[in-house]
Amino acid sequence: MSISLRSALPLGFKAFGVSANIKKNGKKDLALFYSEAPCVVAGMFTENSVKAAPVLLCEKVLKSGSAVHAVIANSGNANCMTGLKGVKNAEKTAALAAGYLGIDSKEVLVSSTGIIGKHLPVEKIEKAMSRLVSGLSKDSLKEAAEAIMTTDTFAKIVVKQLKIGSKVVMISGVAKGAGMIAPKMQPADHATMLSYIMTDACILKKDLQLCLNEAVEPSFNSITIDGCMSTNDTVILMANGESGTKPLAKGSADLKKFCAVLKEVCLDLAKMVVFDGEGASKFIEIRVKGASNRREAKAFGMSIANYNLFKCAMFGSDPNWGRIAAALGSMPSKLKWEKIDIELNGRPVFRKGKPVELKEKDFLKEKNITVSVDLKMGSADACVYTSDLSYEYVRINADYS
Amino acid sequence: MSISLRSALPLGFKAFGVSANIKKNGKKDLALFYSEAPCVVAGMFTENSVKAAPVLLCEKVLKSGSAVHAVIANSGNANCMTGLKGVKNAEKTAALAAGYLGIDSKEVLVSSTGIIGKHLPVEKIEKAMSRLVSGLSKDSLKEAAEAIMTTDTFAKIVVKQLKIGSKVVMISGVAKGAGMIAPKMQPADHATMLSYIMTDACILKKDLQLCLNEAVEPSFNSITIDGCMSTNDTVILMANGESGTKPLAKGSADLKKFCAVLKEVCLDLAKMVVFDGEGASKFIEIRVKGASNRREAKAFGMSIANYNLFKCAMFGSDPNWGRIAAALGSMPSKLKWEKIDIELNGRPVFRKGKPVELKEKDFLKEKNITVSVDLKMGSADACVYTSDLSYEYVRINADYS
Repeated sequence: MSISLRSALPLGFKAFGVSANIKKNGKKDLALFYSEAPCVVAGMFTENSVKAAPVLLCEKVLKSGSAVHAVIANSGNANCMTGLKGVKNAEKTAALAAGYLGIDSKEVLVSSTGIIGKHLPVEKIEKAMSRLVSGLSKDSLKEAAEAIMTTDTFAKIVVKQLKIGSKVVMISGVAKGAGMIAPKMQPADHATMLSYIMTDACILKKDLQLCLNEAVEPSFNSITIDGCMSTNDTVILMANGESGTKPLAKGSADLKKFCAVLKEVCLDLAKMVVFDGEGASKFIEIRVKGASNRREAKAFGMSIANYNLFKCAMFGSDPNWGRIAAALGSMPSKLKWEKIDIELNGRPVFRKGKPVELKEKDFLKEKNITVSVDLKMGSADACVYTSDLSYEYVRINADYS
Repeated sequence: MSISLRSALPLGFKAFGVSANIKKNGKKDLALFYSEAPCVVAGMFTENSVKAAPVLLCEKVLKSGSAVHAVIANSGNANCMTGLKGVKNAEKTAALAAGYLGIDSKEVLVSSTGIIGKHLPVEKIEKAMSRLVSGLSKDSLKEAAEAIMTTDTFAKIVVKQLKIGSKVVMISGVAKGAGMIAPKMQPADHATMLSYIMTDACILKKDLQLCLNEAVEPSFNSITIDGCMSTNDTVILMANGESGTKPLAKGSADLKKFCAVLKEVCLDLAKMVVFDGEGASKFIEIRVKGASNRREAKAFGMSIANYNLFKCAMFGSDPNWGRIAAALGSMPSKLKWEKIDIELNGRPVFRKGKPVELKEKDFLKEKNITVSVDLKMGSADACVYTSDLSYEYVRINADYS
């Protein structure tokens, strides 16, 4: 996993984060991402039928086709299951940011993460707005990334560059986890996985959305920490065209190059979310190959990744592969067990329907674990990422509200 | 929950349990249930596509229509993912029991529970067989119930009686849990939830199976401890006719009475399994009403019951109902959130789309918790049962093998 130490923003973007006292612990909880030039925008939102108010707002703006200048995001409160008052509070938040930035409130996206079912303290956001806007800077992406953290232990930032002609295009993304993470996002639906990605590429809105769809499937939509789909999951991608390149034309090599780098940014951010999963002591990559199609390969991978007994075994560094088999078998598909191979960290543990005697059992002690399953049914594969289930996960979530 | 303190067997049945040293800790691990008179038999087995060898054997016997005299069951080893050798070992176990009992090996059912992927030590079973058979007694159901325990902390026995004409019919059942519990059993498919139920009722095989199907759906198939479907789940119901009643005729009031009592036996056993779930500090009943049909009501209930964040909140006695909403919303069905009511231990926490302000938060401290959800879409309801997710669950499962 490449974690960039840089935290630069693409040309024309500024960001900042402050404490508005929404969180009780006084940590940063209000972030702003801003481009003076108008941005085309693409988004992916959770499939959860509970729609947090800020998600409804984002969907509306995205559907309107309006250009966007800013995203304001708070942690400490999800503004979810808050009824009509919640919708009004999301609108007020957008209007406050718009007022300070001198733009239209329809040009502002809003995100929230935190506890469900409590009203957003808009008055606290109002008080903090002047500090937030005056702090905006091209060097403050880290502050913004910190302000969207909930149980995250580090800020997640990925910055990559590519050359288009003689110009440099930059893609900078931030993300937060760290629990209620099993995103299954659709173009315009709604996460408590939040990610904001900014680029100075010049690209049509429609192409930007297609690039994002393709990038999210093998990254954010292929991770799970606890199998719990959130009500607020959101990925927003903004492009302001300030790099000075000509538009990335549909079908062009340049657009493909851009999409490939965007995929890397999303995958790096998604892996960081898993690496920092609530209570995670392991980073587990599950590779399923030999499936009939990618959808099936991913479903088998997710079945293992969300099987609590497997997750506990990984916490204990216990190569109890029977739980992998049980997880695979709990799926409705028929499997050819007499052919299946299972490997843990490159060691065969089950080969062609037979257990392999393990002489040593301490090969899962490191933080990184790889599970490989070959179903021998077809040629499709998929890779999913998860963390273990630890005492710490239980501690964090036994007393959250 | 009525837990009977009696452990009597129906007329003509004997049972016993011994230590065969399959378990490392020297505890009982081999059980035998026996009727001298031939029994008609019904069974339900897990849907997991990984078929443990003893499950394959039971399915074959059940399909053959053969009468059955005995079930031999071991704990400490699941005889699962053990290939052809596993099948031979299950057959050898049946043959050993048959030899000692003087019956045909096709009249013996076999069950196993414990670790997956290790060969069953049949030589240990052979050594213990003489002690096991000579100990058979009508007063030793408790020993048999103890011998099928794995991480269970108490033996689960339910005994009920009913009157048919002037005769008393008895139904005695045992069960074990306590992890990898999310049974979804089908008539003749295959659990590590094991239950053996014996009755001296006189009933046709076909009617016995129908009664069992009906009794298992709202009981064993409506519980989940960890959402992890097992490879060995099994319920076996044996009827030897020794009560001396006339046959329970199809459609008769007597058969209905028998089925009703069987349902009670299954529900009591299933609740005991949840009560003794791995690391369980809570017994949680989730009632969903106002669904379009029972299947949907149950699916919503199970979605809550298996949502790790809900389970952790319950461990912490935290009325964080937002996680119930998120779990409901993660289902594909559309919900009318503006109408939904949610109650925790009888207290409204969400009413008609709006959060209810909670003045106190310590009303979930007791072991028993009831979650009630009214979806207001239709008139179907369902009840599912689960436990919380605790440190102890993680501890037990981090170092099992």
